[in-house]
Amino acid sequence: MSDRDNVLAANAAYYAAFVRGDYPAMEAVWADADITVIHPGWALIEGRADVLRSYRLILDNPDQEPVLSSREKVYLMGEYARVLCIETVGGGALAATNLFHRTLEGWRLIHHHASPIVQPLPRAQPTRQLN
Amino acid sequence: MSDRDNVLAANAAYYAAFVRGDYPAMEAVWADADITVIHPGWALIEGRADVLRSYRLILDNPDQEPVLSSREKVYLMGEYARVLCIETVGGGALAATNLFHRTLEGWRLIHHHASPIVQPLPRAQPTRQLN
Repeated sequence: MSDRDNVLAANAAYYAAFVRGDYPAMEAVWADADITVIHPGWALIEGRADVLRSYRLILDNPDQEPVLSSREKVYLMGEYARVLCIETVGGGALAATNLFHRTLEGWRLIHHHASPIVQPLPRAQPTRQLN
Repeated sequence: MSDRDNVLAANAAYYAAFVRGDYPAMEAVWADADITVIHPGWALIEGRADVLRSYRLILDNPDQEPVLSSREKVYLMGEYARVLCIETVGGGALAATNLFHRTLEGWRLIHHHASPIVQPLPRAQPTRQLN
């Protein structure tokens, strides 16, 4: 498989872990050190212990909707790669930055940042002035 | 200067261009190729022409508030580096991911992703049931 295919497979593994609520799979997606995450609306979380604790909370939340990925764009950067994709969560769309590092065990996630895309509203009719 | 110092200087140059509304300086901050941006609430923009056009719109907007950076965390990754920081814009706080590449001309921005941090609300009093 090409680097691009392997990076896309690592990206898919992240979202598969989310959809299955599979915490051990989520642990395996992430690199061992120097990892960071910015969840939608959250501030930065640093370090494997705190990053994985945040995923434990999210995956344990019975109201968490599945997170699906689409429109993946891959940028290869030597030993690093970023995937920029659309996440669909409960009818909403988010833009995601996923940064991967090629380790001895394969491509591992080192940074994730996701944020809601504000959808354009349909063109509004001007409010009629009553006076 | 260390790599860390140079990366922080490149990050500072990005925000300085914003505060001054300095479009040529903003052009100089970005790498020549394979650049991408996710502005707050926006979908992904790819390629130097479209990325810079988005900054032209933002910098030309007379209502654009200055964007200030604080709490920079630097992660060096060989020829790449990411800076994770807080942006303060008009009283609101955003979390930013800034990805840099070491080029022959120095560290240049290749990806920017910023998203609002939802501040925790003060603890609410439960609404009293009237029936």
